[in-house]
Amino acid sequence: MNDKSKKYRSHCPINFAQETFGDKWSLLIIRDLMFKDKKYYGEFLLSDEKISTNILADRLEKLETAGLISKAIDAENNSKKLYSLTQKGLDLMPMLIEMIAWAAKYDKESAAPKAFIKQFKKDREGLIHELLTRLKDTSK
Amino acid sequence: MNDKSKKYRSHCPINFAQETFGDKWSLLIIRDLMFKDKKYYGEFLLSDEKISTNILADRLEKLETAGLISKAIDAENNSKKLYSLTQKGLDLMPMLIEMIAWAAKYDKESAAPKAFIKQFKKDREGLIHELLTRLKDTSK
Repeated sequence: MNDKSKKYRSHCPINFAQETFGDKWSLLIIRDLMFKDKKYYGEFLLSDEKISTNILADRLEKLETAGLISKAIDAENNSKKLYSLTQKGLDLMPMLIEMIAWAAKYDKESAAPKAFIKQFKKDREGLIHELLTRLKDTSK
Repeated sequence: MNDKSKKYRSHCPINFAQETFGDKWSLLIIRDLMFKDKKYYGEFLLSDEKISTNILADRLEKLETAGLISKAIDAENNSKKLYSLTQKGLDLMPMLIEMIAWAAKYDKESAAPKAFIKQFKKDREGLIHELLTRLKDTSK
C-alpha cells in the first residue's frame, strides 16, 4: 500500500502519515512530548528523523506561540528548559491516535506497537484516557 | 486561543489545524472530496484557500500515487476527469473529524458547522457512519 518510489525517513506511523499528506516537524515534536516522554531540547534532536537544531528551535517557538506547548525552567537544573504540552496540545491526542491507526493499517513497515493498535481497536476511549493519565503523572 | 499575529487564509477548521501544525494543500483536497461534494479539477480551484493550478495538479498526482484518491473519466463528459477518495483516503475520516473538532474548540472564528460539532459530541460513531454512507451514495 506504500508509495514504493519514496524512501521514508522512519516508519513511525505519525511520520509516515505526515510524509504522505503534509509537513512533518511540528507533529513530530508533539509526538515526542505525547508518546515518547521527551521533555528537553537535546532529546528532540535524538529522534530518528534527525531534525536539525535550527528547524527544532524554529518549530518549538512556533508551537509555543500557537499555544500548543509551554516552556519552563527545569527545577533540577536551572540552565535547562523543560517543554510540555498545554491542554490545547494534549487535545490533539485523539487526532494523533487516529493518525497512528491509519498509518498502522497502510504502512507495511509501520513501527506502531502491535499492543497499541490492539488496544485502540478494543477500547479507543480507554486508551486515550490511559495515555493522558500517564502524561499527567510523568509531568509531576 | 488563536495566534493573533497570524492571518488565516480561511477559518475552515481543517485549514486552521494545518496552518497551525503542518502543510495544507493535500488535506484541503481530501477535505473537498470528503465533505464538500467536489469531484472536478475546476471545483478544487474554487475553494476559499485559492490553491494555484500548478500546486493542485502536483498534489492530485501525489495523492493518486499515494493511493488516497483515484481518477476516472466522467461518464457524462469524456473530456472531464472525476476524482474520488479510495478506501485508503476514506479511512482518513476519523482523523479529519478529530481535527475539525479540535479546530472548532480552539479557533474562535471557526467555520465548523455547529450542528456537526453537536453531533460529534453526542454520537461520534454515528456521525462517521452517516458521512461515509452519504459519500457512497453521491459517488454512484
